[in-house]
Amino acid sequence: MLSNKLRKQIQQLNRKKYRQQWGLFVAEGEKVVQDLLAAHYVPVHLLATKPYENLETISISNAQMRSISHFATPSPLLGVFELPQKAIKTPTSFHLVLDQIKDPGNLGTLIRLSDWYGLNDLVCSLDSVDCYNPKVVQASMGSIARVQIHYCSLENHLKSLAGPIYFADLNGASLYAQPLQTKGALVLGSESHGISPALYEVAHQALTISKQNKNKACVESLNVAVAGAIFLHEFFRP
Amino acid sequence: MLSNKLRKQIQQLNRKKYRQQWGLFVAEGEKVVQDLLAAHYVPVHLLATKPYENLETISISNAQMRSISHFATPSPLLGVFELPQKAIKTPTSFHLVLDQIKDPGNLGTLIRLSDWYGLNDLVCSLDSVDCYNPKVVQASMGSIARVQIHYCSLENHLKSLAGPIYFADLNGASLYAQPLQTKGALVLGSESHGISPALYEVAHQALTISKQNKNKACVESLNVAVAGAIFLHEFFRP
Repeated sequence: MLSNKLRKQIQQLNRKKYRQQWGLFVAEGEKVVQDLLAAHYVPVHLLATKPYENLETISISNAQMRSISHFATPSPLLGVFELPQKAIKTPTSFHLVLDQIKDPGNLGTLIRLSDWYGLNDLVCSLDSVDCYNPKVVQASMGSIARVQIHYCSLENHLKSLAGPIYFADLNGASLYAQPLQTKGALVLGSESHGISPALYEVAHQALTISKQNKNKACVESLNVAVAGAIFLHEFFRP
Repeated sequence: MLSNKLRKQIQQLNRKKYRQQWGLFVAEGEKVVQDLLAAHYVPVHLLATKPYENLETISISNAQMRSISHFATPSPLLGVFELPQKAIKTPTSFHLVLDQIKDPGNLGTLIRLSDWYGLNDLVCSLDSVDCYNPKVVQASMGSIARVQIHYCSLENHLKSLAGPIYFADLNGASLYAQPLQTKGALVLGSESHGISPALYEVAHQALTISKQNKNKACVESLNVAVAGAIFLHEFFRP
């Protein structure tokens, strides 16, 4: 049974204000829900349009799922989970640092990439999109269960790091030619504006993905998630 | 003035059926519209919520723009363009071949990547998302004006190519270790299912992006646009 109260609550969990007020977030999709459960996230409600072995779910209709889903094409499984109470432990191994990432899909994809490359942490500026936004959770494809995401002042965070601080910039050294260490951090800014001016003071090495198209009429930059993928592939070259 | 007839027509151009019926498509965003104009695409209507120098636009209100935009956050400029009449010329230089790409954002990003790497053509299977879907056009960030997009039977297309046919596969040779030529084509399939069985017969070399995370609990694959970015970066290594 889906009560009106629960329906309304799930709809409101689209907003950060309500997620923080209630200490809850929504995850949609079988893979994401299963991965959160495997990582010991605490489920408060599991709603499903079909039965799942080993999962105690509230059975709802497809129409009901459509009324609570944050997506045009809902998945058969939706979970409401407690927001984790994270120990505030500064990351020490190599990680991505994201400056003003606003697009939920991009953040979700960068979480997934961090997981693929075995990075334990991801650090975001305070004005980046919230990682418990339903679209971020979904785009992370379950990786949000395994990557610790921190929100803090990037300037202070970068100053506290011992290793090199690389950053993506349209006028840096070619990524193909630079020796890279998987230590410290790699800072990615917004596609159009790059990293914040204050961060230039604390970052050490500007890196650029070489544009092969030499025509003047060509796209000016790459999507930040796509750029992150290329950087990580290069950092982890054996 | 935005007539009811035009409003309805623009809303309907969200669907491929109507785009083909009327021979029109919608492009939203200043960059995309300007790039299409620069590439001599023929505008039928240009609607704007603010004046543009050198552009003859129909001035509409923000509320009217919201009523016709296909996005939650509309841009100040929307163009309705004629679908181009393309010469059917088989691509001869290195290009991406996309098998069953359904997500508009992924296709748009792969068009943008093709532009960045100077690829003139992009070939899609007939069941891939239509490249004139408003979300594809927007995600391409104007690159759709410069990359020729072809829809055809991939099996026949690949058989007709002279150069090597690489394809992305979870069980291929490591991308880090393979000598690559920017000749022939690179086939990318759907994230979960890879390329269609029939294409295995005509493709020559399976390539894999190495997963660095050796834990069993880790994301199983990468997003197809992100994978495409990593492949292209590697193919164009100097």
